Amino acid sequence: MSQPVGESGPAEKMPAEKMPAEKMPAEKMPVDRMMAADSASRMLGIAVLDYGDGWARAQMTIRDDMVNGHGICHGGLIFALADTVFACACNSWGPVTVAAGADILFVAPARLGDVLVAEGRVRARYGRNGVYDVAVTCSGQLIAEFRGRSHELGERRPG
Amino acid sequence: MSQPVGESGPAEKMPAEKMPAEKMPAEKMPVDRMMAADSASRMLGIAVLDYGDGWARAQMTIRDDMVNGHGICHGGLIFALADTVFACACNSWGPVTVAAGADILFVAPARLGDVLVAEGRVRARYGRNGVYDVAVTCSGQLIAEFRGRSHELGERRPG
Amino acid sequence: MSQPVGESGPAEKMPAEKMPAEKMPAEKMPVDRMMAADSASRMLGIAVLDYGDGWARAQMTIRDDMVNGHGICHGGLIFALADTVFACACNSWGPVTVAAGADILFVAPARLGDVLVAEGRVRARYGRNGVYDVAVTCSGQLIAEFRGRSHELGERRPG
Amino acid sequence: MSQPVGESGPAEKMPAEKMPAEKMPAEKMPVDRMMAADSASRMLGIAVLDYGDGWARAQMTIRDDMVNGHGICHGGLIFALADTVFACACNSWGPVTVAAGADILFVAPARLGDVLVAEGRVRARYGRNGVYDVAVTCSGQLIAEFRGRSHELGERRPG
Repeated sequence: MSQPVGESGPAEKMPAEKMPAEKMPAEKMPVDRMMAADSASRMLGIAVLDYGDGWARAQMTIRDDMVNGHGICHGGLIFALADTVFACACNSWGPVTVAAGADILFVAPARLGDVLVAEGRVRARYGRNGVYDVAVTCSGQLIAEFRGRSHELGERRPG
Repeated sequence: MSQPVGESGPAEKMPAEKMPAEKMPAEKMPVDRMMAADSASRMLGIAVLDYGDGWARAQMTIRDDMVNGHGICHGGLIFALADTVFACACNSWGPVTVAAGADILFVAPARLGDVLVAEGRVRARYGRNGVYDVAVTCSGQLIAEFRGRSHELGERRPG
Repeated sequence: MSQPVGESGPAEKMPAEKMPAEKMPAEKMPVDRMMAADSASRMLGIAVLDYGDGWARAQMTIRDDMVNGHGICHGGLIFALADTVFACACNSWGPVTVAAGADILFVAPARLGDVLVAEGRVRARYGRNGVYDVAVTCSGQLIAEFRGRSHELGERRPG
Repeated sequence: MSQPVGESGPAEKMPAEKMPAEKMPAEKMPVDRMMAADSASRMLGIAVLDYGDGWARAQMTIRDDMVNGHGICHGGLIFALADTVFACACNSWGPVTVAAGADILFVAPARLGDVLVAEGRVRARYGRNGVYDVAVTCSGQLIAEFRGRSHELGERRPG
């Protein structure tokens, strides 16, 4: 009965990280480079599926070292998945952008073996600030709603 | 220049998890049992240092699989540390209590090798709801401020 | 450069409160009755323009008793406008529903004489809980982003 | 059963706004000047009782034009009281500081005739940013918890 409201980014069959670099559009490189250096997301098994200007989508499978004794995923790891999507979406425009803060609502528990999908999209940008909404779902069922507040740094990322 | 405001829980030399169980006060068992079953906190190396009614303190050392290419800790893992402290504090009273949501402010970056300490304390309780504030620091420097919203479940945890 | 992202409810020329009651669809009555009894919204000059299942739209003109010495609208009154829209949207389904909490981001100042329009829409519903996003704009310029958390009470509103 | 946790600012018998200006400490003038120009707070009957570096206290009595048909105060006006206290506390240091955003939790309803007291205090300051917590109470009973995020502007307020 609980479903995310709003639209998702365009579906894409092949995950971006499995696509040969020479086939990737040039403007996708900065986020890819950011993710390639992100040991934490790799440790959590987070795969960025796709992204574009102001949006991103990633997934994470809940392993047995991500749950508590009841087989329920640690809320901090659900947050981490949403936070990675937020980082991809807010850095998709080019300039280096960091998270200033975020709010998360835990809607339903996620369990061992669940494949979580997080989709994020810009809600607003103003000055150096941005607001991004990320919905975390499992088989279409809403797990968490996340709203991130971003801040663009002064330096520009080299092309 | 950024320092947490407010008081911390009583200092204790020996981490609770290294204390022999027979020396532990009986009323500390439910949170200890919860943490013993928490594979996710263990995977992240989170150690609960101490806790009591409505408060808790834990630490986490930032490993090289917790950072990005700039050596900065993933925000989701800072959240996970605060979330674990929040869980200990809000379950310290006895009844099983879950996180309904949380807001985090990222104040300063944490780096490879940093030892983060998170201290949380109840701010208010009403009905089945609670509000807990957690400050994450590194050597007394504020890293993040977290406010968690808890919800007590109907079932009572057996003593 | 700052614009709200997302869609608005269907446009309607005639404000609901000026529509003769006998022309109103029957299912609109509960929110209308709620608003008719809302002295605070009336005191602030808030007019509900339209609403439907899970959404609402209202406006408020900034008077000289709503500003500070710089001619900038008090943030609390911008919040109040968004909160009224939130109340209409979350009560549109029927059951009496209250605000459990809300977060607001102040994007740009609003000034004396500005006509603020707030549009809100459900983001998710789960159990007795709901999440609603409200954007406050002035001539299409984003002024504030509001996310409300609702809780449905046990009692059912009589038809 | 719901009580605010934490300490309040020092008690003071005489409200600051009734104190003759020549008896006021010089450093209190900027906030007083800000409040003197705040028509919105005056319209709502908000009285600043006292303030100092990083904290403030104010009160508001719930009038019949602040309630809905059930005699419950509009949540937006409770927010407005907390927001005014937040503004006093974050401007108490000197530089002009604005609200970037805020989160409020509605704990208990407030009713016609209730005298609400809001007390706010800095939680953390970093760079140009600040975090302030405000508790709104009625006769010692918690009504709402507010956390404001402030941003200091570049210009300095003239002494």
